[in-house]
Amino acid sequence: MSTTAPGSAYTPTERTVPTRHRKRAAYDRELVHAILDDGCVCHLGFVRDGAPVVLPTLYARVGERLYVHGSAGSRPLRAAGGDEGLPVCLTVTHLDGLVLARSAFHHSVNYRSVVVHGTAHRVTDPAERATALDAIVDQAVPGRSADARPADDRESAATAVIALDLEEVSAKIRTGGPNDEPEDLELPHWSGVVPVRRTYGVPVPADDLAPGVPVPDYLAAL
Amino acid sequence: MSTTAPGSAYTPTERTVPTRHRKRAAYDRELVHAILDDGCVCHLGFVRDGAPVVLPTLYARVGERLYVHGSAGSRPLRAAGGDEGLPVCLTVTHLDGLVLARSAFHHSVNYRSVVVHGTAHRVTDPAERATALDAIVDQAVPGRSADARPADDRESAATAVIALDLEEVSAKIRTGGPNDEPEDLELPHWSGVVPVRRTYGVPVPADDLAPGVPVPDYLAAL
Repeated sequence: MSTTAPGSAYTPTERTVPTRHRKRAAYDRELVHAILDDGCVCHLGFVRDGAPVVLPTLYARVGERLYVHGSAGSRPLRAAGGDEGLPVCLTVTHLDGLVLARSAFHHSVNYRSVVVHGTAHRVTDPAERATALDAIVDQAVPGRSADARPADDRESAATAVIALDLEEVSAKIRTGGPNDEPEDLELPHWSGVVPVRRTYGVPVPADDLAPGVPVPDYLAAL
Repeated sequence: MSTTAPGSAYTPTERTVPTRHRKRAAYDRELVHAILDDGCVCHLGFVRDGAPVVLPTLYARVGERLYVHGSAGSRPLRAAGGDEGLPVCLTVTHLDGLVLARSAFHHSVNYRSVVVHGTAHRVTDPAERATALDAIVDQAVPGRSADARPADDRESAATAVIALDLEEVSAKIRTGGPNDEPEDLELPHWSGVVPVRRTYGVPVPADDLAPGVPVPDYLAAL
């Protein structure tokens, strides 16, 4: 699928090559990283009692590894603590636009998504755990982890971290306008794209924030 | 879990009662509907060859049923066409805010999510299929299906629709400010919520749109 130099792209596998819209699939490493870095909420899928479960959760990327955290008592995180780990599918999606075609059939959305297949393992190394927890805070608000009280021993013990390596990975992207049939172009329906964006509002201080604590600069960067 | 009158809430099951943050779980039917109606992209999870798969896809709600469509040749939609259907988990998530606490541990996000467990079945009734396809267009852009050329026989044959009943359903919601520890309140870190919203940009006409076709009123409602 990829004609780029070795190392710059993920190797496609049977389950990362889609059966349809193959042109939208991409394996470029920088592209995958950019899509992952543009979000902080993923959908984590796993199998429980033979049935699929999909839960939204925060994540972070550090190099070629993704981290997810949660309560040490949560079912999937406990399952990932076993020797075999937990088979997962972690998906990140950004909706970029609503694509309105003249025909109902060619309606679509512009989007960027990344799907990661693999086996998640519990992170036990204290240094890696600390890095991962900082990264999860910084994934949502870059720079924030240095401006908060670090976890104490009790908090750290209550938190489980799992890691998923970026090995079996694909991106899928749609951009641009509608792809109408030539014979539909004269139909009277408006056709085009409504851009969709994630935007941040003005920060709302906590009720109990002491007067005079300024809004930090790193929030302006959002 | 629910103390409301029968019928106004979904009945909690073993897999819709979370092991943590139980106070955030909700089963109210109107609340679940409102969360579902506020989105158009879900994450659909299923099991393939024993492993989880999570794919983003468009959906629509019609009463107590969700619809997802796709290419008639796609793997999950073919699997849903069998007599037993396809066990799925369909999740919709809205990110509403980044919650910055004084402690790293109490960082969180405000969100609304719905998780639906069940078995998806292929829709074969032509009238229900047509209703579902219109609903999927209207879920993203209310009012649009009446202002587009309907699918012809070839397009209709190329599209598969699957249905998932709203039976085993839960919502999960977090709102409000950070929950800091009392002893952290005097720390110098800014604390509060950064609101996150989905916003729509100015509609961009297709390159080949004839001059003079006005932007329809239903786009202004977005």
